[in-house]
Amino acid sequence: MSTTASVTEPPRAHDLQSRFCEVRAFTESLAAPLSAEDQTVQTMPDVSPTKWHRAHTTWFFETFLLSEHQPGYTVVDPSYGFLFNSYYEAVGPRHARPERGLLSRPGVEEISEYRVAVDAAMSGFLTDQLDPACSRLVELGLNHEQQHQELLLMDIKHVLGANPLRPAYRAIDRPQSRQEGEPAAATGSDWIEHPGGVVTVGRDDAEFSFDNEHPGHEVLLRPFALSSRLVTCGEWLAFIDDGGYERPELWMSDGWGTRRQTEWESPDYWDLSDDGWLVHTLTGVHALDPDEPVCHVSWYEADAYARWAGCRLPTEAEWETVAAGRIGTSGVGGLDLLGLTDGTGLHPWASADEQWTGAVWQWTASSYGPYPGFAPAAGAVGEYNGKFMVNQQALRGGACVTPAGHTRATYRNFFYPSARWPFCGLRLAVDR
Amino acid sequence: MSTTASVTEPPRAHDLQSRFCEVRAFTESLAAPLSAEDQTVQTMPDVSPTKWHRAHTTWFFETFLLSEHQPGYTVVDPSYGFLFNSYYEAVGPRHARPERGLLSRPGVEEISEYRVAVDAAMSGFLTDQLDPACSRLVELGLNHEQQHQELLLMDIKHVLGANPLRPAYRAIDRPQSRQEGEPAAATGSDWIEHPGGVVTVGRDDAEFSFDNEHPGHEVLLRPFALSSRLVTCGEWLAFIDDGGYERPELWMSDGWGTRRQTEWESPDYWDLSDDGWLVHTLTGVHALDPDEPVCHVSWYEADAYARWAGCRLPTEAEWETVAAGRIGTSGVGGLDLLGLTDGTGLHPWASADEQWTGAVWQWTASSYGPYPGFAPAAGAVGEYNGKFMVNQQALRGGACVTPAGHTRATYRNFFYPSARWPFCGLRLAVDR
Amino acid sequence: MSTTASVTEPPRAHDLQSRFCEVRAFTESLAAPLSAEDQTVQTMPDVSPTKWHRAHTTWFFETFLLSEHQPGYTVVDPSYGFLFNSYYEAVGPRHARPERGLLSRPGVEEISEYRVAVDAAMSGFLTDQLDPACSRLVELGLNHEQQHQELLLMDIKHVLGANPLRPAYRAIDRPQSRQEGEPAAATGSDWIEHPGGVVTVGRDDAEFSFDNEHPGHEVLLRPFALSSRLVTCGEWLAFIDDGGYERPELWMSDGWGTRRQTEWESPDYWDLSDDGWLVHTLTGVHALDPDEPVCHVSWYEADAYARWAGCRLPTEAEWETVAAGRIGTSGVGGLDLLGLTDGTGLHPWASADEQWTGAVWQWTASSYGPYPGFAPAAGAVGEYNGKFMVNQQALRGGACVTPAGHTRATYRNFFYPSARWPFCGLRLAVDR
Amino acid sequence: MSTTASVTEPPRAHDLQSRFCEVRAFTESLAAPLSAEDQTVQTMPDVSPTKWHRAHTTWFFETFLLSEHQPGYTVVDPSYGFLFNSYYEAVGPRHARPERGLLSRPGVEEISEYRVAVDAAMSGFLTDQLDPACSRLVELGLNHEQQHQELLLMDIKHVLGANPLRPAYRAIDRPQSRQEGEPAAATGSDWIEHPGGVVTVGRDDAEFSFDNEHPGHEVLLRPFALSSRLVTCGEWLAFIDDGGYERPELWMSDGWGTRRQTEWESPDYWDLSDDGWLVHTLTGVHALDPDEPVCHVSWYEADAYARWAGCRLPTEAEWETVAAGRIGTSGVGGLDLLGLTDGTGLHPWASADEQWTGAVWQWTASSYGPYPGFAPAAGAVGEYNGKFMVNQQALRGGACVTPAGHTRATYRNFFYPSARWPFCGLRLAVDR
Repeated sequence: MSTTASVTEPPRAHDLQSRFCEVRAFTESLAAPLSAEDQTVQTMPDVSPTKWHRAHTTWFFETFLLSEHQPGYTVVDPSYGFLFNSYYEAVGPRHARPERGLLSRPGVEEISEYRVAVDAAMSGFLTDQLDPACSRLVELGLNHEQQHQELLLMDIKHVLGANPLRPAYRAIDRPQSRQEGEPAAATGSDWIEHPGGVVTVGRDDAEFSFDNEHPGHEVLLRPFALSSRLVTCGEWLAFIDDGGYERPELWMSDGWGTRRQTEWESPDYWDLSDDGWLVHTLTGVHALDPDEPVCHVSWYEADAYARWAGCRLPTEAEWETVAAGRIGTSGVGGLDLLGLTDGTGLHPWASADEQWTGAVWQWTASSYGPYPGFAPAAGAVGEYNGKFMVNQQALRGGACVTPAGHTRATYRNFFYPSARWPFCGLRLAVDR
Repeated sequence: MSTTASVTEPPRAHDLQSRFCEVRAFTESLAAPLSAEDQTVQTMPDVSPTKWHRAHTTWFFETFLLSEHQPGYTVVDPSYGFLFNSYYEAVGPRHARPERGLLSRPGVEEISEYRVAVDAAMSGFLTDQLDPACSRLVELGLNHEQQHQELLLMDIKHVLGANPLRPAYRAIDRPQSRQEGEPAAATGSDWIEHPGGVVTVGRDDAEFSFDNEHPGHEVLLRPFALSSRLVTCGEWLAFIDDGGYERPELWMSDGWGTRRQTEWESPDYWDLSDDGWLVHTLTGVHALDPDEPVCHVSWYEADAYARWAGCRLPTEAEWETVAAGRIGTSGVGGLDLLGLTDGTGLHPWASADEQWTGAVWQWTASSYGPYPGFAPAAGAVGEYNGKFMVNQQALRGGACVTPAGHTRATYRNFFYPSARWPFCGLRLAVDR
Repeated sequence: MSTTASVTEPPRAHDLQSRFCEVRAFTESLAAPLSAEDQTVQTMPDVSPTKWHRAHTTWFFETFLLSEHQPGYTVVDPSYGFLFNSYYEAVGPRHARPERGLLSRPGVEEISEYRVAVDAAMSGFLTDQLDPACSRLVELGLNHEQQHQELLLMDIKHVLGANPLRPAYRAIDRPQSRQEGEPAAATGSDWIEHPGGVVTVGRDDAEFSFDNEHPGHEVLLRPFALSSRLVTCGEWLAFIDDGGYERPELWMSDGWGTRRQTEWESPDYWDLSDDGWLVHTLTGVHALDPDEPVCHVSWYEADAYARWAGCRLPTEAEWETVAAGRIGTSGVGGLDLLGLTDGTGLHPWASADEQWTGAVWQWTASSYGPYPGFAPAAGAVGEYNGKFMVNQQALRGGACVTPAGHTRATYRNFFYPSARWPFCGLRLAVDR
Repeated sequence: MSTTASVTEPPRAHDLQSRFCEVRAFTESLAAPLSAEDQTVQTMPDVSPTKWHRAHTTWFFETFLLSEHQPGYTVVDPSYGFLFNSYYEAVGPRHARPERGLLSRPGVEEISEYRVAVDAAMSGFLTDQLDPACSRLVELGLNHEQQHQELLLMDIKHVLGANPLRPAYRAIDRPQSRQEGEPAAATGSDWIEHPGGVVTVGRDDAEFSFDNEHPGHEVLLRPFALSSRLVTCGEWLAFIDDGGYERPELWMSDGWGTRRQTEWESPDYWDLSDDGWLVHTLTGVHALDPDEPVCHVSWYEADAYARWAGCRLPTEAEWETVAAGRIGTSGVGGLDLLGLTDGTGLHPWASADEQWTGAVWQWTASSYGPYPGFAPAAGAVGEYNGKFMVNQQALRGGACVTPAGHTRATYRNFFYPSARWPFCGLRLAVDR
């Protein structure tokens, strides 16, 4: 990441210490409702066990901060470097990703102890004498852990969703109707017009951001409009009813091949029962709410839907340009996770404003790639974003499972076009 | 199974009750050293999680006894029939075997409660009024559970063995040398001669046995001899050193193809370290003992070894004929499991007598098939053995992980010729 | 092969020369109706291209006779040893079997030239001075080539059958009704009774036979009966109509798994059209004839059928014992190939006698394995039969595509239980 | 294609007729050196048999012109629509692409007849009364056939290259040294500078072009420079020698995963012999010439190479902007195919000018996607380009196997980033 990019003022020790405690504790609170068994299972190669997320985020601080910059530090367990490295080639060999669910040891208790030990060491490390470069690495580690908080929720949803018992992550009652004083659902269909021209995307300022958001640069846009809200489940039902999953002319060739092989007929986590469509959410199985934003659709489906609707997906630059005016260029964020809602668990009356970053990630028409002039950060953390810049599609915004304050208008998320387990949906665009 | 085959006296209620408690408790004692995480993991399709074994053996009693024969019985959880049916097509659909490790729920606590509930119901069911046919089904259920006790140990060895940390199931010190009064190791090379002729194999008597041991029938043998002991690790090292894994002329064509694909170069659980060969056992990693019986070799390897040694594997009939004179036709058995040894954990001075049923299962030259006149038992339990009578090889004897009293001279075990995770080794035979 | 087994008189040079010409020419006559394109295609790993068969059988003579025993012989092309070795590990590395269809060169013309060159060299080699051991190798080579004649027809049927155009190998008119003087169809249901007891199977005599038929040995049989005829297509339709492909209780576990994966619903080459069942044969697509023997069923299907019919498959020993009385112990054989019929192209009125060796290979209940005392031939040709003695099922008899004179009562064929592209059917047996 | 794009003057009948004959004849001349066997084989799913290319290009004219627009036209064979449709969903079901090599029928002779019949019908169709829309479709069909001429050569190179005999497509002697008067090799390292700013890419004019080149639009570039020539084999050797294939930090994550799985260690068709590197070309196996442009490298390799060289790949817009000044916006083209050279068969002294379109396709940094405002053509031909606009990378320029006159500065080619069988190499770019 490009924390070196500019005049960034590193965070002060006290603030960092406090933020460190807060983020680390939040991870533990997310794992708290889960049994040892829940934390162990991996249901597909993309999914990691909860206990792995808890250990890997800890390994990040141990490896990039304590081992390198804290004199005399001894690692908690020499085998953890092998087990909990995710993909950093420069750090050494590592346990194969698809086999994370084969490990019963270390167990959740040992991982709790690992977290406690590293947190204690970090507490001694985060002093006023902290080197600015280290401060920036800590900041990166905390943003990294926030990403894994979201991944933890995505992944545990998949684990629980693969179980025929369809257990809830946290069973809560959902309000059956709009509460007094709550905003109305975002079901209108306003278009936000933009005249095109040269705009600036990305950033070079002093706030924390990832390297893939750099450098800020100018882009020439043609006139276009973005929908003021997300596509809803009710609209998706119309797509299904109109044969959307049966008409190859609506799909990319690779998308159609995927659809035939997977036999997709609806978004992930949807089931057609005798009582209509049911949706598996983190809070259990609920009846589908047509006013909610659709979630858990792949890029292939989102692209086909947009074509069916006579529209297209927005480009990254278009999305960012419009969003920037609404959510600022930094620090706005997702929903409060303590509410533990998900994309299908949002209040159906979630406001259009909330939908920019707090409902579901929004697929764009843009392939995820480097900005002109992009250079990855030096060292092993340079593997953070840059090496994934092919074959994936960019998503923008943020989701209801994104930690508060984590996302922003310039934030770039990315997944393979077949991915459905992220909390991903779409917003339409049109040429003008 | 052919409990209907003859004049079998069904076990009396009191004996059955007591035996039921004993077998059921023993399963729990085997699971006791394992964490919830350990009990959840499945490392390959053949392996089942410990908690699945605990639940499946319980489901057997609930399904075939309580649900069918106990008036008014209500199943503990209607979903368990789907989750814990192993392969009984006649009972209904079931959860896919390779996905047993994807289930975090029900957890170990719920499965403990399931066992308690079914045990309580069985306690009320096992009265003096028990129908003889039901008694025989209970007897079958207990033998079934004993088989799963062995599978549980085989499977957890695989789970722990796949972990780079190489944890022990139960860490115990191994005696480093022969204790006074202990028998000498079986390293001599006596041949037990047999003149051939018509012999009887299988059985029709009143003792419990599985259907695949029936009917007793005559077989015409040619003169042969069996080794009085098992092939040892030291002998296997000589095979390795002589290029045994590199010489296709020693192997069956399918075996050679498997060896090339798997890159086998030694028995499973062996590792060559700087300090020589190490062996992963249920009691941890130990140095290889050349006097111990070799274990965890596939049929393909056993067959190649025998050819290399200028011998062959015994047929089932040969093995049974010789063994019967040594271990009787019923009830002799494996080692006491509380000792928690395994094939590579046996005392190197295990006696030749103990090696008939208490060390490792012994691959035979015989394809596993029906005896002449074989008929599977009526009903769903008829799926127990008969439907596996193709593509597998018969093994005889018993292993150190086989519950005491479970095996006998007529007992027929079977696995695919590529299987290495059972406790399987070999004994040589020659034509005379 | 065990040509060394006994006092076999080697064939005389003149007879061998004449037989050599005859067999070699017959292969070419089988390839004659096929285009260069037909001879190049491989539709699955088990299938070899026609031109490969033509070259491989030539390579056999070049490698085992000319190169080893003809002083001064120079191979036609040094690369052919790599390309046309089938599976002889002792001869050296070889081109991968599943990739035979990737080779456009050498083309059919070059292979014709290869055959001519080797035939010319063999002509000079087959003199009265020929060493008896060489004579026996030539005899083996001719029997080997006859086996490939059958394989060539099996394989080209698969190639043409995979083509949506469903071309015929040789289009001929089929008689629509019984011709005067022709025998009636074998549709009666007589049982041939056998009292059991000790019988001799296999052979040790002076006639040519393969090593897997040796040694002759005694076997103890229980009373049984064999059907006097093969199961017909009409009977198979009754099996289908009775849900035979939908009832797991009729199937071996592996068979049921295969059936589900493959979605088999009828024998291979059958298609249900608006006009009823059509069958693809070497002579084109014909309406199914219910009186013909069923063909192209796997062992799994044959076994399930037998169970459905309340019978079982015969063992090898049972089949041989009954057949020996009908067809002698040597030299009887299949149909004249010039008629170019296949299992579904047989005259529906084929006699019961003809069905022993001239209709379809008959699956047995026996796993293909070594006879007691079996020893493979010395040298590379020892890889001929022995190394396949696991995982496969024995078939007996012969088929309409088996060259005349090639088969006999002791002849043992073998295929994996899932194979359907051989000309294989079944004959029922029962216990008495 | 963008026939709707503008005021395009359709070609006149006479010109079209003459051009039709020329293009169609050229396809046949390319197939002429190939045997029936050569034309039948398919070595991987991406490769099509030569005879399929010959038939498919014919099917295009039959389907989109004759069947739709020529009254009374009857298709040559109704089955051909199924067999020779490549990927047009709107036209109906089709034979599976990976199985094209399983079809021996129709043979090369029948396909020759098919071509003759359709050419005759087209001759009657291409009159002065031809509808302009039809003229444009014919033009599209001819450009389509030219693309398949290149594919035919790429594919047959793969077929012959997979053969251990390494046959040549057309054996010709290569000049061993520079001939008098020939230009010097392009081995200098000039950078062509560009100041950036708003440029126009794509096109809207009257000349033929594909739909993916439309619409012309403005793009904002930053200052950059392009190399005046392609990367050479000699430079690639330096990359290999410097561990380029062993250093994950040079690679994209997906690229590194692919490299590990495929075990790539050099460009495709390279072999390291005792005499140094050999290269398989359409004219046979030759010693590697360090001055030739490197060919048959995937995007993953090209990207890694550029990073290793401290440069990057150009974007599509950068490439087009620079190239346009050198090769005009239309009609310049590849080498004369009658020379039958390939990327490694180019004269090492090929000039820098020739390298823009006549040596190898050049990978760009750009993901292949729609231009802003892109709309696919109406009807089935709209499936031509648009549905492939995800997961692939754009290539620019042209190759020595691209038909003369086929390519241009705005031409967009595309392949998956792992593809190596196209004639693809690279040209470096740098930021300024």
